[in-house]
Amino acid sequence: MFVQNLRAKNPLIHCITNYVTVNDVANAIIACGASPIMADDINEVAEITKISDALVINLGTLNERTVKSMKASLKQANLDDKITVLDPVGASVSKFRSSVAKELLKEFRFSVIKGNLSEIKFLNDLKSSSKGVDISDKDKDESLENIAFIARNLATKTGAIIVITGQTDIISDENTTYICKNGNSMMAEFSGSGCILAGLIAAFVCANKDMPLKAALMAVCCNGVAGDLAKQKNVLTKVGNMTFKQNLIDEIYKMSDDKIEDLAKFEEIE
Amino acid sequence: MFVQNLRAKNPLIHCITNYVTVNDVANAIIACGASPIMADDINEVAEITKISDALVINLGTLNERTVKSMKASLKQANLDDKITVLDPVGASVSKFRSSVAKELLKEFRFSVIKGNLSEIKFLNDLKSSSKGVDISDKDKDESLENIAFIARNLATKTGAIIVITGQTDIISDENTTYICKNGNSMMAEFSGSGCILAGLIAAFVCANKDMPLKAALMAVCCNGVAGDLAKQKNVLTKVGNMTFKQNLIDEIYKMSDDKIEDLAKFEEIE
Amino acid sequence: MFVQNLRAKNPLIHCITNYVTVNDVANAIIACGASPIMADDINEVAEITKISDALVINLGTLNERTVKSMKASLKQANLDDKITVLDPVGASVSKFRSSVAKELLKEFRFSVIKGNLSEIKFLNDLKSSSKGVDISDKDKDESLENIAFIARNLATKTGAIIVITGQTDIISDENTTYICKNGNSMMAEFSGSGCILAGLIAAFVCANKDMPLKAALMAVCCNGVAGDLAKQKNVLTKVGNMTFKQNLIDEIYKMSDDKIEDLAKFEEIE
Repeated sequence: MFVQNLRAKNPLIHCITNYVTVNDVANAIIACGASPIMADDINEVAEITKISDALVINLGTLNERTVKSMKASLKQANLDDKITVLDPVGASVSKFRSSVAKELLKEFRFSVIKGNLSEIKFLNDLKSSSKGVDISDKDKDESLENIAFIARNLATKTGAIIVITGQTDIISDENTTYICKNGNSMMAEFSGSGCILAGLIAAFVCANKDMPLKAALMAVCCNGVAGDLAKQKNVLTKVGNMTFKQNLIDEIYKMSDDKIEDLAKFEEIE
Repeated sequence: MFVQNLRAKNPLIHCITNYVTVNDVANAIIACGASPIMADDINEVAEITKISDALVINLGTLNERTVKSMKASLKQANLDDKITVLDPVGASVSKFRSSVAKELLKEFRFSVIKGNLSEIKFLNDLKSSSKGVDISDKDKDESLENIAFIARNLATKTGAIIVITGQTDIISDENTTYICKNGNSMMAEFSGSGCILAGLIAAFVCANKDMPLKAALMAVCCNGVAGDLAKQKNVLTKVGNMTFKQNLIDEIYKMSDDKIEDLAKFEEIE
Repeated sequence: MFVQNLRAKNPLIHCITNYVTVNDVANAIIACGASPIMADDINEVAEITKISDALVINLGTLNERTVKSMKASLKQANLDDKITVLDPVGASVSKFRSSVAKELLKEFRFSVIKGNLSEIKFLNDLKSSSKGVDISDKDKDESLENIAFIARNLATKTGAIIVITGQTDIISDENTTYICKNGNSMMAEFSGSGCILAGLIAAFVCANKDMPLKAALMAVCCNGVAGDLAKQKNVLTKVGNMTFKQNLIDEIYKMSDDKIEDLAKFEEIE
């Protein structure tokens, strides 16, 4: 029903995102049933947010010019109560990125914040350090319990749904926490896995506004199940990372509520 | 003969285009037999237009900086009588984009203007509204007769060849109008189908300058036939949108005049 | 051992590169065993270079803003003795690009400079002219002897390892020159072959710092062998350029020192 809703509504997703993975994000947004529009000029972003159903802010390759546009878009989105998704790519990697991430968090409301544990810890004022745009090795050993606690804590502080990606994904608001065990190691072997997920989350949540936490969970499951199906396509030979990426987006395109119901491995945790 | 000319001449196509689909545009331009050069800095664009055979201006992800560069390039291109193609992506989606589109149309001559019906209507001062960068649902029901009339009208006003993409594509100057029925619904299921076509049009027209209308038609046929062949590759299973995109550009790479002659479904209409 | 070292160390590669091929560069860097980080804002680039193991400067789609960032990054990289790779895409194509290329060469130290013969000739103050971002037809006929001489000459002037790509690739410092005969004509049939190689060189060299010339040679071999394997995948039918590109990066992902040892065709020349 979540996928079906999304495809019936075909929401428009405004993305201010990095130029590294933007094409894959656009195609993944189409694949799941929504329509992407990428626009980052200060002269038009607020108008484009206004006609869109959701706004994705991705901090990869941010610059002074686009940060202003992000703020103008977020202002409009908050005014109109649109779905907003923050993807704080490499949030702690530089002072500039750190301060932008913190500023956005302070000045605007986000419906969902999605990051790896290093990024989410940073936003939560916990000591952490990314390895570039990837999770740090140290953070890889954090217990699921701790991660869930961090998610709930940031959810409480910000009012946002928190998605922490990792071997096990966490999807949480301040009261309820889900884990999802779909997906596999190949998803870290290409650039843009997280960016794609942020796009999917925006699409799923704005098409299923009455159940945002469940919708965010379904977006995570959709991505993970697609990753699992993509991997199964090449069981006999080692799959290359580019073919895997293509298969993943293809599988999002072919996704259905039934497939998610059959293959999703999620549960609510305490 | 159009494809053969293009491959023999290997023209250089200067593109000032959006960062979403730029890679696919570059590879499609190579695939058809031309060479792409993407450059958008005001300090070099005029020089690069000067050494190029054609200029493609694509309004997706435009910004203040690149609009200045578009104008400098167009000025040079018009001065040197180069082939110029305008792709007014989402022309009416914001005041900024609308005014840039209208300004470019007023200040510069275009050899070809290519858009979906919503975009072309807007440039023709007809009431319309895009859905983001896609055609609006309302415009989808316009009759072929009306669309042809709109194309001829804009061709008369601007002196440009007008290409209107849709289920049936229209290629028209002020006197002669062709329709092309190749292509299929998968071409709207990935990002950049229109951007790729604009690149092909520039390549075909500048390599076949004595027959620009026919060359634009052949570019549309090339794209449509490639789309049809790409779809046929995956008749037994549902094809994903990323695989379809890859197949499409691959088929452009393998295109020949013979294939177009065999498979193109075009005719002249009154 | 070069590939093994690279995968064991998983170095972080900071790229200031063009928006045309950036996604393929990122995925190729992951494929070979390193991690990419693309960042070009003046407010963060020096910091990001500082935490990275190597810096790639690619002049495609450069602009005034990113040139400042390139200089800030290079300053930091030279200060910290990081591996730096220059890819002077289309160096002579405009006055702006020419002067930036020459300025960077004058003001900063590069570990490796990689280009086609037209680009390297230009940096060497020899008469040449690119065809857009491709080698000029005239330069295609230069003898291997002359090319090797040009490489050694620029190596002596700059202290950099020089890589000249072409039908036969040249890898040279001021004393020792290798040629590599892997690779094939398909590698010029998609956009970004050279950009990918620059990323690989940065990764191989910074993970094998004690043998930089051999490491650069191994990067060239890795790329060429991957291209050869990619081509062999489609011997029965003509392969499209997009499928070839995907196969190439996939083969980099599956590369091993053993494969390079088996398949690399390189030798030292006088």
